[in-house]
Amino acid sequence: MKNLDLSLYLVTDKSDDVEKFLKTIEEGIKGGVSVVQIREKTADTLDFYNLALKVKKITTKYNVPLIINDRVDVALAIDADGVHVGQSDMPCDVTRKLVGPDKIVGVSAATIDEAKKAEKDGADYIGSGAIFPTATKDDAPKITKKDLKEIVDSINIPVVAIGGITLENAHELSDTGIAGLSVVSAIMSSDNPKKSSEKLLNIFNN
Amino acid sequence: MKNLDLSLYLVTDKSDDVEKFLKTIEEGIKGGVSVVQIREKTADTLDFYNLALKVKKITTKYNVPLIINDRVDVALAIDADGVHVGQSDMPCDVTRKLVGPDKIVGVSAATIDEAKKAEKDGADYIGSGAIFPTATKDDAPKITKKDLKEIVDSINIPVVAIGGITLENAHELSDTGIAGLSVVSAIMSSDNPKKSSEKLLNIFNN
Repeated sequence: MKNLDLSLYLVTDKSDDVEKFLKTIEEGIKGGVSVVQIREKTADTLDFYNLALKVKKITTKYNVPLIINDRVDVALAIDADGVHVGQSDMPCDVTRKLVGPDKIVGVSAATIDEAKKAEKDGADYIGSGAIFPTATKDDAPKITKKDLKEIVDSINIPVVAIGGITLENAHELSDTGIAGLSVVSAIMSSDNPKKSSEKLLNIFNN
Repeated sequence: MKNLDLSLYLVTDKSDDVEKFLKTIEEGIKGGVSVVQIREKTADTLDFYNLALKVKKITTKYNVPLIINDRVDVALAIDADGVHVGQSDMPCDVTRKLVGPDKIVGVSAATIDEAKKAEKDGADYIGSGAIFPTATKDDAPKITKKDLKEIVDSINIPVVAIGGITLENAHELSDTGIAGLSVVSAIMSSDNPKKSSEKLLNIFNN
């Protein structure tokens, strides 16, 4: 398994204001974000590529892994640390072939079967959710804490929980065996992303 | 330069009815389509990938090159013959690095500067348009026949014209020096794609 600290895994939202977007990511990292995933579902490829290059400057500066959502081509083009694919994206085994053995490959899995298949097909970690109601991705499958725990117990690769995790509910996941908290809004929409990250990491570590 | 017959270059539209879509492509090839490009701007990556695999079976059967629009990852994943990038897609030089020297790389260029840059950056051919009004891509830059001729004369790689080309207007491009006609609706929306392809190719060759 790759040496990967998934404790506080930031997934970005749409970057309407790029300067603010980049500043938020940097503040998040200062507060303890340990992985950054760029998720852009509507951007033109060129915009996604250029944005990813900008984010990479920050993650490289702080030595935090950068993961690209869905777009294996963008991940390869900017030499990101890895790629994250959902169940509607490139299949995990094909993704692994495209990026080679050294890049991080993450897979979204909402069931034990999806998680086991991802592990078999070369995933380094699993993202499972949505564990709480979320406005960011309203088509995401919903899972319970029991589902999450069963997914964690069914595979040998680490699992991060995602979906509606906030400063208020993060503590509820303490007994699930997850390797980290994955958040979008809790950091991206925070007035103080550094402080929010510190608090989330503190909750996870306690 | 790669040995590439661009005479009748089919770009697909959205594949709502996959069986009909595949049938249309096959009939088009029977009628003389010499290159097929799959263009899917809204499909999930998995759907694009699966569709591309299905189209590849047809193009392989008839030994016609298959080009993927925009998505270098899908092109690599299905081992397509090449990829076509627009001015809002992956930069041509980055695309060339990702796919290597042997794959076909095409670039959309509406100006001499864009065409020259694409040639310098490793493109094998240029697609220029829209040469006629088109409903398929209403944000495409418009070019005149004079523009098209100047683009053809400014570079050493072949140019295909695209945008609103029909059985009625195709003959107007006979003195532009283009290497082929690129069409969407004229074949994809035809009641008889084989016949339409034959007629288009006949117009181009005469």
